[in-house]
Amino acid sequence: MSHSSAGPEIERLITLLARLPGLGPRSARRAVLHLIRKKAALMVPLAEALDIAARQINPCSQCGNIDASDPCTICASPGRDQSRICVVEQVGDLWALERAGAYRGRYHVLGGVLSALDGVRPDDLRIGGLVARASEEGVSEIILALNANVDGQTTGHYIFDALKGADVQVTSIARGVPVGGELDYLDDGTLTAALVARKQL
Amino acid sequence: MSHSSAGPEIERLITLLARLPGLGPRSARRAVLHLIRKKAALMVPLAEALDIAARQINPCSQCGNIDASDPCTICASPGRDQSRICVVEQVGDLWALERAGAYRGRYHVLGGVLSALDGVRPDDLRIGGLVARASEEGVSEIILALNANVDGQTTGHYIFDALKGADVQVTSIARGVPVGGELDYLDDGTLTAALVARKQL
Repeated sequence: MSHSSAGPEIERLITLLARLPGLGPRSARRAVLHLIRKKAALMVPLAEALDIAARQINPCSQCGNIDASDPCTICASPGRDQSRICVVEQVGDLWALERAGAYRGRYHVLGGVLSALDGVRPDDLRIGGLVARASEEGVSEIILALNANVDGQTTGHYIFDALKGADVQVTSIARGVPVGGELDYLDDGTLTAALVARKQL
Repeated sequence: MSHSSAGPEIERLITLLARLPGLGPRSARRAVLHLIRKKAALMVPLAEALDIAARQINPCSQCGNIDASDPCTICASPGRDQSRICVVEQVGDLWALERAGAYRGRYHVLGGVLSALDGVRPDDLRIGGLVARASEEGVSEIILALNANVDGQTTGHYIFDALKGADVQVTSIARGVPVGGELDYLDDGTLTAALVARKQL
């Protein structure tokens, strides 16, 4: 389908932008018009930033985070707690935890979760690397911060089993009522989990 | 504010993408992760397409459309009806009319509408060029296809007055019930316009 009548250069740009999550053909067209209006201030810098990122950004060979350096800034930072490794599914989860600012240890990005439906098996994830890291000198705790769904739980169980040989404590982030959450609007699963995990005051 | 913890290259990319219409900080982060996962298939081609478009795409000096050639493909096409010029506010409106495929004349892109609030005056728009084109040999009709709001109407009246010296018919696209529109859901203005513009069957 032709998106516009402005020649192949613009068509190609619209097609590529429409493949970004959150953008469809209509918003991609609007984005292209915006980019052309802001050519010097936005379009040229964006082309350069994409080019630089494409050439410099790679997964950290240790933890799977993405960065311009390898090992990544977090793995290389002497200020981070070396005794804790927090296991997340995706880099986006790592970013979310970093924004929260409550964790000062290191990470391990699995690159997904086990899923029979999608055919994701243990070998497709960075689990071997995690087991190796768990046996390193000074690592005492592996914190599982996986999504609270079936695949996340399955993956958590698998990792728990895989880490049985290592001398580490394996913990999982808490399930419960989100901050600001009103009970009336929460699903049964969350309420049940919050009740089961109740704490003495 | 820091968007991630993945270094300045990614921060910059997120900041730039978040400035596109339809994307905010959250969706820009998701887009960047998607781009890095699809580096060869999407990120590199997008960087190239932006670079090519930034270097080659410019406004048509005749009609204000954007294209890699000047005059643009539409202005230069001998197959287009040379007697009609359709006036639109933005290039996106031109694209919308081209997608509809019901018009085979040429266009004139104003680059906006008159707006006291936003301080847009006649000199800020491509109105002088339109008046000049209206006086060209063979041009017989100027079709106003402006948005159906106050600024669009004000601009339409101004152009109508400016074209009084030219020997052309000035028309405006019809206001009425949109195709598929149900009366119960339409605003009063549209219903009034549709009633006023009623046609004999």
